[in-house]
Amino acid sequence: MKERKVSRAVIRRLPRYLRVLTDMEAEGLERISSGELSERIGYTASQIRQDLNHFGGFGQQGYGYNVKDLKDAIRGILGLTEDYRMIFVGCGRLGRALANFVIDSQKNYHIKAMFDIRPEIIGTSILGVPVYDEAGLKDYLKKNHVDIAVLTVPTEQAQKVADDLACGGVTGIWNFAPIDLKIPEEIVVNNVHLSDNLHALTYYINHGE
Amino acid sequence: MKERKVSRAVIRRLPRYLRVLTDMEAEGLERISSGELSERIGYTASQIRQDLNHFGGFGQQGYGYNVKDLKDAIRGILGLTEDYRMIFVGCGRLGRALANFVIDSQKNYHIKAMFDIRPEIIGTSILGVPVYDEAGLKDYLKKNHVDIAVLTVPTEQAQKVADDLACGGVTGIWNFAPIDLKIPEEIVVNNVHLSDNLHALTYYINHGE
Repeated sequence: MKERKVSRAVIRRLPRYLRVLTDMEAEGLERISSGELSERIGYTASQIRQDLNHFGGFGQQGYGYNVKDLKDAIRGILGLTEDYRMIFVGCGRLGRALANFVIDSQKNYHIKAMFDIRPEIIGTSILGVPVYDEAGLKDYLKKNHVDIAVLTVPTEQAQKVADDLACGGVTGIWNFAPIDLKIPEEIVVNNVHLSDNLHALTYYINHGE
Repeated sequence: MKERKVSRAVIRRLPRYLRVLTDMEAEGLERISSGELSERIGYTASQIRQDLNHFGGFGQQGYGYNVKDLKDAIRGILGLTEDYRMIFVGCGRLGRALANFVIDSQKNYHIKAMFDIRPEIIGTSILGVPVYDEAGLKDYLKKNHVDIAVLTVPTEQAQKVADDLACGGVTGIWNFAPIDLKIPEEIVVNNVHLSDNLHALTYYINHGE
């Protein structure tokens, strides 16, 4: 699926459109003007037009947007009409909390396995998902296609696990370890660097926004 | 502390400088050329110079950077030489995982209290931190100064809690609920929208980066 390249800033905004439109649909709104959408989402009407034009545009002059159609279109653009096979590497508190978040609220993502190095949890299951030995990760990946691996291991293990994931051909890594992974270009990595985020917040606490 | 406004992009990069420099110091590096720093951190030497010049610049022609001095300077800029009083609102899996992360790895942040609405955990303690009734949050804030409130309640409670936090005068909110809080401008909010992040990753899985 190759197409005109859309900037990262636009892609980062799409999930927010989806969230706001999903809320609007739940409130029973069928159609909104670009002004209303703008007010609700906090981007200017012109920004919204520009963003959506990357994907063909959806609004109609004098009508605005159909909430459900636009929501469905953005879901489709993001790929949320498909299903994804997911694994977790690292079953500590954060791994378990995130697995719970996925199971609770992200219906398209199916957690097939979790991996850890601690003998006491290997062979058990967490939230109904089997926990395997991290030593068997490469082997598992040879036999099972994985779309997204969630990386929640301690920092010092993260690069080694990422190498295994790359070698095993996962498509994307959702990385929560506070390091910048060295990974082949064809693998997509999205980082959630909690400490970076907290430290930036701290800067603004001291200096104002 | 008012000063020349530095762009959000620069501030977002500072914690990464800090991370890389901290690693370098741990490896025993005393001094690095701007080229080495550039290679390690993945920004161009010119980008690095520009970033650091916002704060007076730290490199010396022909010498490069002193690792420890630069690290300490960035810690100071971010405000990590100070201590911060923190509370958590929402003691579910994610709240507990994040509290554990803060206690484990963020020495300057002191969790003074956690709040929840569930009677069965009110009055207990989590990771050594007392859990109070969320109904008493406003009252607690009247009596105790809080720098950062971490918001890990379910979506439908988030705005109400944010109103209490704003009313109680917290300085910053670290928000993990998937909504865009309406909050007075003087309060700093940093969002970690997990679902947005996962959905952007999903886009790139389907379309390439």
